[in-house]
Amino acid sequence: MSELKNDRFLRALQRQPVDMTPVWMMRQAGRYLPEYRATRARAGDFMALCKNTELACEVTLQPLDRFPLDAAILFSDILTIPDAMGLGLYFEAGEGPKFHKPVRTQAQVEALPIPNVAADLDYVMAAVRTIRSALGGRVPLIGFSGSPWTLATYMVEGGSSRDFATIKRMMFTQPEVLHQLLDKLATTVIAYLNEQIRSGAQAVQIFDTWGGVLNTPCYQAFSLDYMQKIVAGLIREHEGREVPCILFTKNGGQWLERIADTGCSAVGLDWTLDIGVARSRVGNRVAIQGNMDPSILYGTHNAIRAEVKRILDDFGPHNGHVFNLGHGITPEVDPENARVFIEAVHELSGR
Amino acid sequence: MSELKNDRFLRALQRQPVDMTPVWMMRQAGRYLPEYRATRARAGDFMALCKNTELACEVTLQPLDRFPLDAAILFSDILTIPDAMGLGLYFEAGEGPKFHKPVRTQAQVEALPIPNVAADLDYVMAAVRTIRSALGGRVPLIGFSGSPWTLATYMVEGGSSRDFATIKRMMFTQPEVLHQLLDKLATTVIAYLNEQIRSGAQAVQIFDTWGGVLNTPCYQAFSLDYMQKIVAGLIREHEGREVPCILFTKNGGQWLERIADTGCSAVGLDWTLDIGVARSRVGNRVAIQGNMDPSILYGTHNAIRAEVKRILDDFGPHNGHVFNLGHGITPEVDPENARVFIEAVHELSGR
Repeated sequence: MSELKNDRFLRALQRQPVDMTPVWMMRQAGRYLPEYRATRARAGDFMALCKNTELACEVTLQPLDRFPLDAAILFSDILTIPDAMGLGLYFEAGEGPKFHKPVRTQAQVEALPIPNVAADLDYVMAAVRTIRSALGGRVPLIGFSGSPWTLATYMVEGGSSRDFATIKRMMFTQPEVLHQLLDKLATTVIAYLNEQIRSGAQAVQIFDTWGGVLNTPCYQAFSLDYMQKIVAGLIREHEGREVPCILFTKNGGQWLERIADTGCSAVGLDWTLDIGVARSRVGNRVAIQGNMDPSILYGTHNAIRAEVKRILDDFGPHNGHVFNLGHGITPEVDPENARVFIEAVHELSGR
Repeated sequence: MSELKNDRFLRALQRQPVDMTPVWMMRQAGRYLPEYRATRARAGDFMALCKNTELACEVTLQPLDRFPLDAAILFSDILTIPDAMGLGLYFEAGEGPKFHKPVRTQAQVEALPIPNVAADLDYVMAAVRTIRSALGGRVPLIGFSGSPWTLATYMVEGGSSRDFATIKRMMFTQPEVLHQLLDKLATTVIAYLNEQIRSGAQAVQIFDTWGGVLNTPCYQAFSLDYMQKIVAGLIREHEGREVPCILFTKNGGQWLERIADTGCSAVGLDWTLDIGVARSRVGNRVAIQGNMDPSILYGTHNAIRAEVKRILDDFGPHNGHVFNLGHGITPEVDPENARVFIEAVHELSGR
């Protein structure tokens, strides 16, 4: 493996001093880039792109070729695990992901196989190895997974949901069935992320996109406990380096202290909580990743720079900040505005 | 006007002692009730029901005839104001509310008329008067409005939205145009709520359903400042009684102190923040309304009672709690579960 030339991202996750605040963007390889749309058109549909090693590597590197980003993230989808469990993932135009075979009964949960991640998700590991090699040490590579709760919402609902009625009904009438499902998912996520680390991922992020729809006791019991189990089961050192782990619960600002107490390296923040408040609440226990509203990228260059400055000032002169958006960059954003954002983070934070 | 026989709700909003915790449910007159579905079928579409004084009164009273609720709420929609401004509200099956003429340019904002609420929204005032009279003092009647920010999201997006891209683009590129729109809406909401109060509403609630999609400075500037202006412009005493005002920002838990500082009587809470934490943060400044996840009503009777007890215990032995769901009751709930919920609040809180 090539030596890492830019370790700003990993150093910040370990709360070590950096020359400037590292920055990457969730969904940085995505539809806002014309070169992504061209590659995707060649691949066919979204999952075909995820499963094509060369093209998945190509789109992963595209934003790095344009912008001075401090990390790459594996191009994949959070729903690869349920797909490998046999649920039949498909995408319907304008409707997001769906499953042919949702999981709703105790018998269906019991029958659910635990995938052999190296074999059943070999295309993910091949992408990790290929991207890592193609990066040649430019920046670190982030692996990722959905959280058990978030994966379960799609598996039980059969796709996206507005009110999560089906899984919440299961939660309040058959909690033991849901726990069995979440336990299988946690076991699989541990194996999945560890295999990504062995394949070359230098940090991992767990996306808990839907933890924020729960109340506190349910968040603790049905989402956070399983993420904590995952954190405890992860490879924490590989190739002689710490492998940081970032937990990101969208709309999870009220549970920051609990998330920080799981033993993760960093907490991901959406934009609804001030990062200064977040920093003062978790102190020096963990790094913080975030937290600009991606829709500010619709704004003027001046508005983008002002918001970057506001967030940097709010975080203050501490170690342990990875700049990011609070959610994925959206397809309508002008790539030049993404450049203004990324360059502003470096310029305005340079020591 | 008849004398008020049950003033538990109004007393709790004023943080006075009560014999048991008052309870009502957002959307308590709604599709989970078979008698509501029958009346709605007679009326035709949803707006026809809102505009039919007799039928709007009938559905308002239906849940009170079934359950020992402590308040009635005007049956109407938050989008009556933009409809009166000429945007052409309509409902498409399964897609929620839409507008024929969204408002997106400075010229469109400038051309927007400020309605004469007594004349242009006379059907709302007729419903308030009729319901108030039909209640005969059983319980107080709540009037309501959407917040300027929440109304503006529908008016600019042209309907519901997932990411609010259009209004956020306006916010970050033409903030002065958005402020002009919000200012017109705040002026109208003040007149609208005051006319509801003069027509018989004994408390008012402002629904800020979408304030929670903003970051702190934007929430303050584009949502809360306008709600504060409304609070300052409301009739606060009528018929010799205080008229309490409840502000409810969904996903607004991080801004509780700011909301409490507007001068409102009570803060509405969704279920994502513990009510005990909320109480300790706002102290005795305001009452708190909330905060059970409506999906717990899918659960067993025991699960519902346990959750009511947990929330009552978490709030603790203070004055100033109005029990409610953290969002509207959903159409799939069994009405008997709503009864278990309401009766549990009274039984478990009885002094």
